[in-house]
Amino acid sequence: MRAETTLASQIVEAIQVVVGKNPVVLHEPRFAGNELLYLKECLDTTYVSSVGKFVEHFEVELAAYTGAKHAVAVINGTAALHIALKLAGVGLDDEVLVPSLTFVATANAVTYCGAIPHFVDCEERTLGIDPQALHDYLLDESEIRNGQCVNRNTGRVIRAVVPVHTFGHPVDIDRLLSVAQDFHIAVVEDAAESLGSTVSGRHTGTFGVTAALSFNGNKTITTGGGGAILTNDPELSRRAKHLTTTAKMRHRWEYSHDEIGYNYRMPNINAAIGCAQLEQLPSFLEAKRRLFQRYQTEFAEVKKLRIVVEPEGCRSNYWLQTLLLDESVASQRDTILDSTNDMGLVTRPTWTLMHRLVPYRKYPRMELSVAESLVRRLINLPSSAHLTMVGAS
Amino acid sequence: MRAETTLASQIVEAIQVVVGKNPVVLHEPRFAGNELLYLKECLDTTYVSSVGKFVEHFEVELAAYTGAKHAVAVINGTAALHIALKLAGVGLDDEVLVPSLTFVATANAVTYCGAIPHFVDCEERTLGIDPQALHDYLLDESEIRNGQCVNRNTGRVIRAVVPVHTFGHPVDIDRLLSVAQDFHIAVVEDAAESLGSTVSGRHTGTFGVTAALSFNGNKTITTGGGGAILTNDPELSRRAKHLTTTAKMRHRWEYSHDEIGYNYRMPNINAAIGCAQLEQLPSFLEAKRRLFQRYQTEFAEVKKLRIVVEPEGCRSNYWLQTLLLDESVASQRDTILDSTNDMGLVTRPTWTLMHRLVPYRKYPRMELSVAESLVRRLINLPSSAHLTMVGAS
Repeated sequence: MRAETTLASQIVEAIQVVVGKNPVVLHEPRFAGNELLYLKECLDTTYVSSVGKFVEHFEVELAAYTGAKHAVAVINGTAALHIALKLAGVGLDDEVLVPSLTFVATANAVTYCGAIPHFVDCEERTLGIDPQALHDYLLDESEIRNGQCVNRNTGRVIRAVVPVHTFGHPVDIDRLLSVAQDFHIAVVEDAAESLGSTVSGRHTGTFGVTAALSFNGNKTITTGGGGAILTNDPELSRRAKHLTTTAKMRHRWEYSHDEIGYNYRMPNINAAIGCAQLEQLPSFLEAKRRLFQRYQTEFAEVKKLRIVVEPEGCRSNYWLQTLLLDESVASQRDTILDSTNDMGLVTRPTWTLMHRLVPYRKYPRMELSVAESLVRRLINLPSSAHLTMVGAS
Repeated sequence: MRAETTLASQIVEAIQVVVGKNPVVLHEPRFAGNELLYLKECLDTTYVSSVGKFVEHFEVELAAYTGAKHAVAVINGTAALHIALKLAGVGLDDEVLVPSLTFVATANAVTYCGAIPHFVDCEERTLGIDPQALHDYLLDESEIRNGQCVNRNTGRVIRAVVPVHTFGHPVDIDRLLSVAQDFHIAVVEDAAESLGSTVSGRHTGTFGVTAALSFNGNKTITTGGGGAILTNDPELSRRAKHLTTTAKMRHRWEYSHDEIGYNYRMPNINAAIGCAQLEQLPSFLEAKRRLFQRYQTEFAEVKKLRIVVEPEGCRSNYWLQTLLLDESVASQRDTILDSTNDMGLVTRPTWTLMHRLVPYRKYPRMELSVAESLVRRLINLPSSAHLTMVGAS
């Protein structure tokens, strides 16, 4: 009991040195730019919904910032994933490889396509899909038939893999692309958490055939609710815009639709906030890196844990700061969560693994020992940019 | 040629007498209330997304205004319909009766449930589903087996019917409820267009087991993008909230989900606009009624057409003002659309009928002669509330 109290109180103390003694939430947005100005412009022009300049401006700026050739703004990250998967060819009864360690939207979006999530393991270094383990698994469990990867056990086509850049840390995308290519599997990046994160200087979300971003209220920048589809393919971009705007055909007055589409477009009022937020993104990223460094300094003194560092060759946006306990003290996780939250320092464990959720228990999966270990040991720390913004209160 | 020019120019003139000679769009929102104040409060408190008081406030006020026991705010009307249908029990391979005369979202939402839209006809009096024609059709084409209505031709269960209150005019809901009851079919109201419309003093959207509202930018009030599910059933309301918020279970820190849910919640920033708009709804409705009366006066002078009037015993919100040409001059519809739009007076025909759209051509349907006739003859007129707001510029 004594040792547990000590580790938990050491952690409380380290967090308080970094963020102060007042209550702090896990992640909150900061609106210190042109948000109100742009919102007022929406109201003044009456362009709050599907018409208005901010949606297009946001898309252009997102593409410019990420280096993706095209960005299509949508209503949230889940909708972005849904359409990103459809555009990658995912359809009825396909299987899609998804990390078990992710937010539920990754798996849900697969089911919205009528497809089946197939859960794969992570590596501790990146917190993302382990390319070597995936390679070995596919070698054992699948075969190529007519240029498609077929699951030997289910007979279904494994159509795509969805690497998640967990908490903003880039997955080992180069090796994952190589595995996907070997097995004829499309890569759809779940970059919901990784705006601002790069691999060898190239932005996450620009490696796959398509990718999804999120601008939920807890993300590095927010539009209230929002997301975007990234792609370098002009035809997929055109299809993304068409499918997310009810597949309506252009006409002066006619309302006609050439396929079953979705009402996923981002309203102009949300895009207006996004434009203002994007202007501040570089300063948010600096602040979040500074916060990481302060945590790193403080937690260097605490034994039996480490703070998660961006993988080598990568730059993380440090969306959620993450402590990783040694396995020997994993049993103290809930005590630590209690102690920190009781002090008003909001921390949380990571998501329940997908294959442990009732709706996904019976889906195909590989051995998931690393993900199981990570979930026992992970704690997310207060991560808001404003905690270390220069000049912030 | 001479006669055509005359009818079109008479219509242009009548519209100009009502709305003036400057260009006017079909429908635009008006923000003359607390919109900016509430938006500023969202920014100041940082509550723009899934947390914040405006969502709950909007739901409470919507329920109070409509008289529905519960309202659940969601991301748009399409999402509201999707969940409203699911809650009414619509699932894989069910059939759902939908008017062919509607916006595509009504049919799309059915397909999102894995179900099949089955298109039915309208009556000219309400522009909505014809209860008598539906009754006769079901009598011929369906039978009750084990308490369910089964389509004799397809063998599938006809699970629900979705009356649409077209352009705000209430459908003949009493007779439709009676037909639905006789045939063991659930009623899900598409009240996307009818906020403020009542039948014998009772608000549309409170008659079915569930209903959907929309607050798109072109609706009577707007949240940028938004919608709501109405229901009088507390358990369905609880399920609606759960399903639209990723089916996450309540816990201090755990992320766990007990079914496959959706990310359909309305962001606080959009609800903030909704709260301000709802405060102005009574004045918008008065203005829209005044606009109707002015159009009615002007068009009384023009032969071979009429302006659509609310059905007897009903109060319409007059969302979109509607001209109905006599069949004898229906061939002039496109000339009229050209003439008005060329003058900057935005008018449009109604939607392409669902059974004429490529994705829905092969779906089951009854004879749709009234809908076919209406589509040839309908023209929507400029309908913004601000055109007749007292004190509006």
